Amino acid sequence: MLDFCLFGAGRIGKVHAPNIAGHPKARLKCVVDPDLDAAQALAEPLGAKALATGEAALADDSIGAVLICGPTTTHIDQTEAAANAGKAIFCEKPIGLDIERVERCIEVVTKTGVPFYLGFDMRFDPSFREVRDAVLADAIGHVEQIIIVGRDPVPPPIAYVEQSGGIFRDSMIHSIDLVRWILEEDPSEAFAMGECLIDPAIGRAGDVDSVMLMLRTPSGTICTLSNARHAPQGAEGSFGAQFFGSKGLLRVGTAYPTATEGFDANGPLAKRDFPGFQQRFADAYRHELDHFVNAVIDGTPMETGLEDGRRSLLIADAATESAQQRQPVTIRY
Amino acid sequence: MLDFCLFGAGRIGKVHAPNIAGHPKARLKCVVDPDLDAAQALAEPLGAKALATGEAALADDSIGAVLICGPTTTHIDQTEAAANAGKAIFCEKPIGLDIERVERCIEVVTKTGVPFYLGFDMRFDPSFREVRDAVLADAIGHVEQIIIVGRDPVPPPIAYVEQSGGIFRDSMIHSIDLVRWILEEDPSEAFAMGECLIDPAIGRAGDVDSVMLMLRTPSGTICTLSNARHAPQGAEGSFGAQFFGSKGLLRVGTAYPTATEGFDANGPLAKRDFPGFQQRFADAYRHELDHFVNAVIDGTPMETGLEDGRRSLLIADAATESAQQRQPVTIRY
Amino acid sequence: MLDFCLFGAGRIGKVHAPNIAGHPKARLKCVVDPDLDAAQALAEPLGAKALATGEAALADDSIGAVLICGPTTTHIDQTEAAANAGKAIFCEKPIGLDIERVERCIEVVTKTGVPFYLGFDMRFDPSFREVRDAVLADAIGHVEQIIIVGRDPVPPPIAYVEQSGGIFRDSMIHSIDLVRWILEEDPSEAFAMGECLIDPAIGRAGDVDSVMLMLRTPSGTICTLSNARHAPQGAEGSFGAQFFGSKGLLRVGTAYPTATEGFDANGPLAKRDFPGFQQRFADAYRHELDHFVNAVIDGTPMETGLEDGRRSLLIADAATESAQQRQPVTIRY
Amino acid sequence: MLDFCLFGAGRIGKVHAPNIAGHPKARLKCVVDPDLDAAQALAEPLGAKALATGEAALADDSIGAVLICGPTTTHIDQTEAAANAGKAIFCEKPIGLDIERVERCIEVVTKTGVPFYLGFDMRFDPSFREVRDAVLADAIGHVEQIIIVGRDPVPPPIAYVEQSGGIFRDSMIHSIDLVRWILEEDPSEAFAMGECLIDPAIGRAGDVDSVMLMLRTPSGTICTLSNARHAPQGAEGSFGAQFFGSKGLLRVGTAYPTATEGFDANGPLAKRDFPGFQQRFADAYRHELDHFVNAVIDGTPMETGLEDGRRSLLIADAATESAQQRQPVTIRY
Repeated sequence: MLDFCLFGAGRIGKVHAPNIAGHPKARLKCVVDPDLDAAQALAEPLGAKALATGEAALADDSIGAVLICGPTTTHIDQTEAAANAGKAIFCEKPIGLDIERVERCIEVVTKTGVPFYLGFDMRFDPSFREVRDAVLADAIGHVEQIIIVGRDPVPPPIAYVEQSGGIFRDSMIHSIDLVRWILEEDPSEAFAMGECLIDPAIGRAGDVDSVMLMLRTPSGTICTLSNARHAPQGAEGSFGAQFFGSKGLLRVGTAYPTATEGFDANGPLAKRDFPGFQQRFADAYRHELDHFVNAVIDGTPMETGLEDGRRSLLIADAATESAQQRQPVTIRY
Repeated sequence: MLDFCLFGAGRIGKVHAPNIAGHPKARLKCVVDPDLDAAQALAEPLGAKALATGEAALADDSIGAVLICGPTTTHIDQTEAAANAGKAIFCEKPIGLDIERVERCIEVVTKTGVPFYLGFDMRFDPSFREVRDAVLADAIGHVEQIIIVGRDPVPPPIAYVEQSGGIFRDSMIHSIDLVRWILEEDPSEAFAMGECLIDPAIGRAGDVDSVMLMLRTPSGTICTLSNARHAPQGAEGSFGAQFFGSKGLLRVGTAYPTATEGFDANGPLAKRDFPGFQQRFADAYRHELDHFVNAVIDGTPMETGLEDGRRSLLIADAATESAQQRQPVTIRY
Repeated sequence: MLDFCLFGAGRIGKVHAPNIAGHPKARLKCVVDPDLDAAQALAEPLGAKALATGEAALADDSIGAVLICGPTTTHIDQTEAAANAGKAIFCEKPIGLDIERVERCIEVVTKTGVPFYLGFDMRFDPSFREVRDAVLADAIGHVEQIIIVGRDPVPPPIAYVEQSGGIFRDSMIHSIDLVRWILEEDPSEAFAMGECLIDPAIGRAGDVDSVMLMLRTPSGTICTLSNARHAPQGAEGSFGAQFFGSKGLLRVGTAYPTATEGFDANGPLAKRDFPGFQQRFADAYRHELDHFVNAVIDGTPMETGLEDGRRSLLIADAATESAQQRQPVTIRY
Repeated sequence: MLDFCLFGAGRIGKVHAPNIAGHPKARLKCVVDPDLDAAQALAEPLGAKALATGEAALADDSIGAVLICGPTTTHIDQTEAAANAGKAIFCEKPIGLDIERVERCIEVVTKTGVPFYLGFDMRFDPSFREVRDAVLADAIGHVEQIIIVGRDPVPPPIAYVEQSGGIFRDSMIHSIDLVRWILEEDPSEAFAMGECLIDPAIGRAGDVDSVMLMLRTPSGTICTLSNARHAPQGAEGSFGAQFFGSKGLLRVGTAYPTATEGFDANGPLAKRDFPGFQQRFADAYRHELDHFVNAVIDGTPMETGLEDGRRSLLIADAATESAQQRQPVTIRY
């Protein structure tokens, strides 16, 4: 049994908390959030304790793991504190938004030697995992072109946008990580375009909401990643990918929870809309928690680590700079 | 926590055992099978005890529930013994093959008042449940026509065929139950055709392997159910359904575990075959166990019961008689 | 060049007339209809003459072919007259509704030796032709089960229903012909159910509007054909088929004119509805005319003939009788 | 009737020649090709005359139109000669590869006032036309992002590559024109990446074979166009597009000639491969010819003209420069 303290009772904490509570080898002991009401609302129904700060939990030897999923700005401090307390760490992506601060954090965590998993949940989506397995098994030969689309259902609150580090670091970083993970190769060149088309308030917050990023790898793979802060069409086409190889094509289509379709005189019956990535990647969240719990208990390696966080952040930094400067950027790791 | 004794370490026991073991509110205490090696092979890795006979388990007060999934011929005796021992009962379909014997069993179980769930797992398939919910919500109006296809991947062993009660009672009974459950109406007329096309040994065992059944309900719904003992094309089209209503159409297509598709010069990369219903209905098996566990613990009603078993058996009996006599059969309940 | 006289300016005449006029090797010379206004409305824009009766056209030696597509009750008389006038004949299905009258007509036409094509247009649908080609090439082995669905978009006028010979002879006869044509085998046993669910006036006219027909062939193929007089869901699923073989599956899905799909917050953008079989089988109508014109000009055999009409009618007769008697019917040819 | 002289008996001439011959309002009078054998092989079966040079045809007053589809290097000279001879002109894209030469040609043709159509056949593909119609009808609101994929089935001969002007001007220009046509807006900024991954001989010929182009329009639409010189996966995914709008999504999927699908133990039966764009866009070629013939006969405007050729070439020039310089390029018209 692995006992958890969860940091962050927000949108993503609400995904992880019941997954911990329902895992046969895990227990949710406490939920930490400065908003104690939110912590309580999440903790109580799951039989856990609510705390406003984390010191007591980190000092509690019965707690073996922390899951850090508060605002991005808190990730590094909590990661370092948990590492120093000897806890196994599951940290939501991104670790941080400042590359130098991230590198110092890597040093701290590495020194303590605690197990660390970075929450690139899309790696645990069965569809994308099937792509990676097929690519590694050489099913489509050398991957020549990649197109990945990822769209939020609706724009996040402006307060979130302001802290997010921008759409490339906050949102597109998932697709960036997929490219690195599936190709097992790091892109060397980035060019991005960004526009604010969806909500002018996003522009006033200094961000863009509709972006494309072109990447090139040393072996010649050319990728285009597309993200946007809304998906007026619902689930259909909101997360999808094409991998064109020298021998074939792999494609990730729209994933629906059932194989049922309905039609009446007005078109389809079920609107098949989706409230967001929490639903699309519900299985992925469960699978990544299962991976983390088992890796901690069995002492086996984590599928993602701090270096994945650092490299994806460097690419997102390059994309951000490219979109702002309207120039291609060479990526150095 | 609900502690289980599982009766039957065969094909379907191998599906249920890990589901029990992995359920947060359930524990697998013992596995009973006259083939003690099989019982051991299943029980041991899950931390359960293997037994050749069930008496000890039924006498053990710590065991709250039995899951009966041995050969069909054993279901009734085990059900009655478990009922008399006061256990909650999860019995695989069908309860039995002889309608009079089934009716006596219903009396026994009813008298004891123990919770009883009959394993029509397809009711817990999210796709078919979505159909039922939509039909009950009047999304397609009065259901005028139904077509349901169900195919085994490969023929079962002849020894299994011989005990199975025939393809209508063994295999098509799932689709029969779906019709009753989705329409909330019992068919009144049956006509069936059967052929032995796939394996002559099935014919020598007195059964057929390729069948269609036409049903009519009192409200005028006409249904065709199609079953066969092989699916040379793999998963594609092996389980599917169409529900034509006065206002629209509901359709259940091929359910795949991922949204990934692959193509190379020889066609698709992933063969997308399926080893059988255990894989297609893996989620349904988990959901029905979850339903059973919660209904026992909370004392809430079971979604299927003995009367569902009796009625579906009567329809399968009518289908069997119709195919043999080449005449339509009126169904009386 | 083959000059045509078209008999019948109704629903189906409006499909054939422009096809004749647009064919590079054919010319539409006249349109015959007792409703002279209708004849004129159809003939004039296509540069043809309108006539109330056919004598003059049949006497005109420059006319090489007739296309008969008026009410079913007129087919046989016009066919015999055209045969006696030595014209090549394209007759819409069915030839007639009375099997004895059909057999006498066959004698007449056979004696004259004129080319005769019976308008089973679905044989020229590229999707069903692909199925037949694949079946004949043994792509799926022995065909064990067939399911074919065919639905009208909306019920025909009651006046049409009254003359139609009933839904089996009028509508389902297309699927019946497909089964014979694809299997190259004639069914020997029929069982049908029919209900009047859509429009009570259809019932008052002595017909049903929602039917299923089960057929068995001597080699053991079991088929279910489903037809209904409306399709509230639009094109989706209104014409479709599954052919389950000993080695694989062939399936005909919904045929759309483009590969474009649209989605907005209310679901799909394009309703993708279809006004009926004229649209679904527009290509088939063109292909069958092309086949007829070339077969007449080149003196090559027709793909369908009178015997196909007779046999399909016998099966439709058996279906009608079965639905009325609620008994299976043995089919003799 | 419009009588044609066809210039060019190659790959694309073989598509157009039978379309002219089969059009009810057109006649193929002669085929011109310096390779007289090729001209003869194409002309004779269609009842046309073969010529090695075009002077006689241009001098023949009975010829009303020319269709120019020889090597790109011949387009401008033949266009100018035909314009000076007063013929209506259907010229395959691109007009030419040198923007200054193109601009002089535009002057010549404009002065003569002959009807001119530039063969952007994809505008006549029913799927892409449906997209344009929907976009113009504001079905998806402002188009925020576009992704278009176009792939050749196999690389063209190196001799062709050498004359082609490069993959952006030869191949991607189709997608470039689609963007301009559907958006009714000209992109202002281009960034492209190109690699030679498929055939080193293409690299030795100074070209690349795997490219992506990112475009931005003044209203903020960001597009990515992807092209490659092979499609090892066959038809699936080789031509496709996504248009993400402020209100919804339009998508062009894989267009297959039938709605038939087949599956056996090895996967799908029909490989559904495609020999190339001639097959994928067979309907489009017929539709564009029909448009041209009717526009000439009726004196109505052409859907594409010289200015479309000039602007698409300017964008393809920018893409080529960007890929070579690894810098974004501003496009000026």
